[in-house]
Amino acid sequence: MPEVFRTSRRVEFRDTDAAGMVHFSVFFNYLEEAEHEFLRELGLSVFLSDAEGTLTWPRVSATCDYRETLKFEELVEIELAVARLGSKSVTYAARFLRGGRELATGKLTAVCCRLDEGQPPRSVEIPAWIAAKLAPFVAAST
Amino acid sequence: MPEVFRTSRRVEFRDTDAAGMVHFSVFFNYLEEAEHEFLRELGLSVFLSDAEGTLTWPRVSATCDYRETLKFEELVEIELAVARLGSKSVTYAARFLRGGRELATGKLTAVCCRLDEGQPPRSVEIPAWIAAKLAPFVAAST
Amino acid sequence: MPEVFRTSRRVEFRDTDAAGMVHFSVFFNYLEEAEHEFLRELGLSVFLSDAEGTLTWPRVSATCDYRETLKFEELVEIELAVARLGSKSVTYAARFLRGGRELATGKLTAVCCRLDEGQPPRSVEIPAWIAAKLAPFVAAST
Amino acid sequence: MPEVFRTSRRVEFRDTDAAGMVHFSVFFNYLEEAEHEFLRELGLSVFLSDAEGTLTWPRVSATCDYRETLKFEELVEIELAVARLGSKSVTYAARFLRGGRELATGKLTAVCCRLDEGQPPRSVEIPAWIAAKLAPFVAAST
Repeated sequence: MPEVFRTSRRVEFRDTDAAGMVHFSVFFNYLEEAEHEFLRELGLSVFLSDAEGTLTWPRVSATCDYRETLKFEELVEIELAVARLGSKSVTYAARFLRGGRELATGKLTAVCCRLDEGQPPRSVEIPAWIAAKLAPFVAAST
Repeated sequence: MPEVFRTSRRVEFRDTDAAGMVHFSVFFNYLEEAEHEFLRELGLSVFLSDAEGTLTWPRVSATCDYRETLKFEELVEIELAVARLGSKSVTYAARFLRGGRELATGKLTAVCCRLDEGQPPRSVEIPAWIAAKLAPFVAAST
Repeated sequence: MPEVFRTSRRVEFRDTDAAGMVHFSVFFNYLEEAEHEFLRELGLSVFLSDAEGTLTWPRVSATCDYRETLKFEELVEIELAVARLGSKSVTYAARFLRGGRELATGKLTAVCCRLDEGQPPRSVEIPAWIAAKLAPFVAAST
Repeated sequence: MPEVFRTSRRVEFRDTDAAGMVHFSVFFNYLEEAEHEFLRELGLSVFLSDAEGTLTWPRVSATCDYRETLKFEELVEIELAVARLGSKSVTYAARFLRGGRELATGKLTAVCCRLDEGQPPRSVEIPAWIAAKLAPFVAAST
């Protein structure tokens, strides 16, 4: 059984809009915040320094499907799993829930990249020790 | 030939992040801003009042694919077309360009809804006069 | 001795800008988030319903002074006190710290208002039971 | 008579909150956007490269007073002047108006700094050629 990373956020006022609910773009922020917290929990970071320099994870794709709305001061639970672990990229799948009921689902694909001074990020293979940390969270069916 | 709505935005500092580029979530804000400007240009609004009350367009799906980064003070051009005009929903397709070169593409699906006091939004058929305004922008191939 | 409300926030990526630090406007969001958490802790809310309708707290003044920068993933501690409790308004004073060291200070003045349907907010006296909850946090010297 | 820089912004949906108006923190973003547009108009930038490296303008103080609310799709006019031009810092004064009526006023103080690789920003005297460009906008009375 794959593992799932769980966290939660209280909806802040700046996350809402004049329709009285959380703005649709903010779910992408919640997804990213869950990803970053997940990486910290694994002893990683979205900016990782090693002997060769800095590894980071630019996004190549983000998607979200919305079923129900979310409001100010509500507690949103976020479940994060790895939908796909490629050689150079990882796709996270997120579920957003309130009281156990699914409000929205999202995906985020990030590519493992080296940052070289003054150059655009260069995609590289995910180091084996990082892939090993992500592996237990890879969802079975994808 | 379907029509395309074109607008542009100067990248503001609040749109950037510590990676030195526009945060991936902000493309969804640009997409929405283009949609709202497009609706205004058609004499519509994302909140429309008529004899029966208020019509609005909650989002059910949003997606974006990123190819190149965008930086502070750069000018991003946004092209908006209607990828699909359903009976109750509209899917916008956006292209993000800099100097004519495509940086990213996105889609946003919104459902036509009535707002009834104290109720969740209720999906309704897109009024014919609104559908007629959107029709010239429906992309041929989708 | 007046009481102080303490909370903390992990700096999220969306809070940073291309200068590699937290955007100055985000300190106002942190201040507000501390205020809202403080109100919840007192059993209040920034939107409070009673027999007469809804009480809320529009802002009339906000100010922040910055001494040091704050970065992604750092933990910012926020201390909130009541600098002034007027008959119709409250001024919060906040200190932002990292590892006990002060980075910035801010103030936010909010006015107690009634929301009447279709009218602009109308300022009213702070109800005695609310003032009583805020009173222990009033700073001695101001 | 000192000169005033004028610009305007259409209120976007992401600028609003669940109270149905522009979030108070967003006025600081509008103020900054006006400052950056003003600098571009003068042929400057908030990040300026010269022979010695990069000059930039970290903020040391920001304040805003609010009189009236601002709503989605409204047009906000921003007037920017230089309230004070010090040897190492500049204080901008902004007025926010709708249809010529003042909604809010704000101030932002920024310090001229050198960015040296891997060091915190170091304050320096504003170069004479930059001060000369700002001088016509210095308000008489302050």
